[in-house]
Formats: sequence, C-alpha cells, structure tokens
Amino acid sequence: MCNACIIENVKSSMLSRRSLFRSSAAVGVAAMAAGLTTAKTALAQSSGKVVDLTHAYDRNFPTFDGKPGIEMEKVVDFAKDGYTIYKLTIFEHTGTHIDAPLHFTADGTSVADLEPANLVCPLCIIDIKAKAKDDGNAMVMKSDIEAWVSANGEIPKGACVAMNSGWAAKVAAPEYRNTPDGAFAFPGFSKEATDLLTEIGAASIGVDTLSLDPGNSKDFAVHYSWLPSGHYGIENLANLDSLPAKGATIFVGAPKHKAGTGGPARVMAMV
Amino acid sequence: MCNACIIENVKSSMLSRRSLFRSSAAVGVAAMAAGLTTAKTALAQSSGKVVDLTHAYDRNFPTFDGKPGIEMEKVVDFAKDGYTIYKLTIFEHTGTHIDAPLHFTADGTSVADLEPANLVCPLCIIDIKAKAKDDGNAMVMKSDIEAWVSANGEIPKGACVAMNSGWAAKVAAPEYRNTPDGAFAFPGFSKEATDLLTEIGAASIGVDTLSLDPGNSKDFAVHYSWLPSGHYGIENLANLDSLPAKGATIFVGAPKHKAGTGGPARVMAMV
Repeated sequence: MCNACIIENVKSSMLSRRSLFRSSAAVGVAAMAAGLTTAKTALAQSSGKVVDLTHAYDRNFPTFDGKPGIEMEKVVDFAKDGYTIYKLTIFEHTGTHIDAPLHFTADGTSVADLEPANLVCPLCIIDIKAKAKDDGNAMVMKSDIEAWVSANGEIPKGACVAMNSGWAAKVAAPEYRNTPDGAFAFPGFSKEATDLLTEIGAASIGVDTLSLDPGNSKDFAVHYSWLPSGHYGIENLANLDSLPAKGATIFVGAPKHKAGTGGPARVMAMV
Repeated sequence: MCNACIIENVKSSMLSRRSLFRSSAAVGVAAMAAGLTTAKTALAQSSGKVVDLTHAYDRNFPTFDGKPGIEMEKVVDFAKDGYTIYKLTIFEHTGTHIDAPLHFTADGTSVADLEPANLVCPLCIIDIKAKAKDDGNAMVMKSDIEAWVSANGEIPKGACVAMNSGWAAKVAAPEYRNTPDGAFAFPGFSKEATDLLTEIGAASIGVDTLSLDPGNSKDFAVHYSWLPSGHYGIENLANLDSLPAKGATIFVGAPKHKAGTGGPARVMAMV
C-alpha cells in the first residue's frame, strides 16, 4: 500500500475502534478490581521469588529499525568531579519496553497515564516454543489461548498475557531479528488472539521478541487494534522460562515521562 | 574545600569503605532471604491496593542543577507515518529516580546490576513532616529511626527506608528546591541515620526530595557513604502520604541500561 493509503486505512480503522475503546474503558473498573483481587491471591500464595523479566541493554541491543536505541555520554566523571552522571539518548521503543496506546494513535493514553492497577497484575504465559522452532514467524493464535484456558483455567480480568516463543535466548544473535537472507523473522501475536483477549478483559500483552506482531507482518494488525482499544504491550521480555504458565504476578515498571508513547521499562515477576 | 582536596578526601574515604562494602556484601544473601520472606508475608496480608510513588515528569520537573532533565523530540509522527516515537535526551538523575553505587564510586554496582530481590521489598516510612515544616533542611536522625522501631517493631533486613518530609506536595513550586533567596533547602537523611541503617541491613533509602542529603549539605556525607557501601537510593518519591508507616511492599522499577549510574524509575507500592 502507498503511504497515503496506509494513513487512510489507519484513520478509518481508528474511527471504528473508538466505540470499542469506550466499551473497553467502561468495563475497565470492574476488570481492574477483579485483577487486583487475583493478584493479591497469587501474591499470598507466592514463594517470594523475584524473577527479572528485563534484558540489560546498551547500544548493541537489537532494535526494530536496526539503529542503536541508546547512546550514553559521560557528562560528569568521578575521577575528575567526584561523582558520575551519563546523558542518555534513547529512542523510546528500545530494550525491554512498553508500547502505550499513544504509540499507534493520535490521542490515545500515554505511557505516563497507564492505570497503575494494570501495572501489577496476574501473568499468564502462553508457550509456543514448539511451533516457533519450525516457523520463525509463528503466531499466538486464538486456539493457543483456548488451549491455555483448558489447561490452566480462566484468564483473570486485568491480566498480562505473555508469549514465550523461546526467542529471548537468541537476543545476542542476528537471528533474534532476521533470517540469514536479511528478512524480518520473529514470532508475535495474531489479531484473532488479541481480539479474544479484548473480549476476555486482559489489560496487556507481552512478547519475548521485537514486536507484538510477527516479523513478517505487513499490516501491524495487532499494533493497530490492541493499542488503539486502550491496551498496552511489552516487547523484548526476558526469562519467561523461569516462570510457570500461571500463578506469577508481574510488576511493570513503565516509564512516566509525560506524553510518552512508551519506553524502556523494568519488568519483574514474583512467583 | 578545593576540588583536589575533595577528590583526595573521597579517595581516602573510598578506601576505608571497601572493607565495609565487603562485609555488607557478605551479609547480603541472608539479608535478602529475610527480606523476601518479609515481603511475601506483607504481600499476603495486603489489600491489593497499588499506590504509584512516581512523579510524571517533563522538562519542567525540578532538577538538582536547575537545568531540564529530559528533552523530547518527535522523530516519527502518527499523522504522517501512522505511528509515533520520541527521541528522549535524559540526564540520568532526573524525575523519580535511582542513585546506584556507581553514581558516587569509580567501580561500584551499576543500576543494571542491582540485585532484583532488593527491588521488591518491605517499605518502612519515617515521617518527619512536623520538623520539616520549621526547618527546610531537616534530617532523618538516628533518633527518628529508633523512634520508628519503638512504634513499629524491627526494620526488616533488605527493607527500603523512606523519608516522608511532606516535600512531594511542593514539587510544582520553587520551594521544592530553594528558599526565596535562592539557597538550596530540602530535607534529607543524616549520615548517623544511614550508618544505623547499614548496621540494621536495609537495602535502600528513599526521599521525597531532590537528594539523599539535605539541601544545605556541603559534603554529601550520605551519598559518599551509603552508595559506596553497596546500597542504593531513590530520590523524588511521590504519594508517601497514601501509605502506612509499615506493611507496604515497594516495587522499584530501576532502569537497566548497562553501566548506568542510575536513572528515572517507576516506583510503586502495594498495601
């Protein structure tokens, strides 16, 4: 599609989703309360083990556009000044980071305005490692979510639903982002899956890859539906293998710069 | 003191503190385990209420040096490109943020290497609002900690001990940082208090002001003892009035850029 067509398509898509956003917001309060109760229950049963779901990052960390996502300049130096400070130049969507609704909308919720109760919530992990081994652009499908529910019970309202594709183990290698011939290739969510999660009342999705949509996506269908409907996403999660499919509570340390579209976050879980 | 004297003083101070750091590290594992157990106990008794302890910030947020701590440049624009990304220029010690040991040492722990178990821990809040009302450079003293223990019981090992001076309410006003004649004035910790917290085995301290040391400090005694001994600090906390003196669990979303000395963090608590 030409750029103008993409823009028109997006605008039309946005209009039709405003009603969805409104209904989503309306159920938000009840969902939030239910999520909190569930998080509390899960925490009460936890072992107290903290798992860090965040990659440490620097200018070599893989990015979607292939350019360094952070640069650091020492502007105060301990040897000379008695303490040290760096000036950081950060492109928001770098490292383990948040996609706020504002990332893919004209006027959606900024990262600073995400509801705090949606940043501490039950974590449900959907393991698609088996199919991602054979398909570098594998997707979490509606059937994967249904299978998770059959095995683990209902997904709590207000939950974070994360994809574990096994990709975190490749983070230092070129295949985290590309096939050997340079094409994008990494797993993500399908729109049919996130549409179901909207119905269920999940608050956020997370992926252990560079994008909520798979690498070969041409239309960014999940970015253009999940985010505009008032949800948020987490990209480049680490260490999901250290957690059970259900029962963990995630703490999403989203950055809080005003009017931000997202940014590097500290994400941890207690199990 | 001349700059050279300050540096020599710091170096000599650093040497004498290496042994303290080693002993501190040695008790770390036990302290951590005890802290986790306590955090788990506190979480099990919680109401599930999440309190956001983070100020939203932009270029107008007060900083220690008075210069803007963040600048935002829109480098991808929804109206033109179909999505939005900002390039952020951030001086590490801006907004609600972490001071890692590396901030005041040559080779201490970076913000990326803080122990995750010390980022989810019991929160003890010491209220000095009454004396801070009369003294803009009031300090948490050893006696304040002893009084807290008398009223609330032991401070758990691995805890975060935060000062509530009432300063968060002034954050949008000049008096958050200065007296009317331009002198620095804001409350902080005294070294006698943080020395006691080192003995007790606390992992971190937090303040609702611009600095761990009070505004009129000439020697940054807390920065030069607490941080080099392997602890971390949190500055510019918000909403401490919404929490009880004891019983809350703090989630410290420290940033994870490699070799960082600190940086903007998302800090929340559950009570």
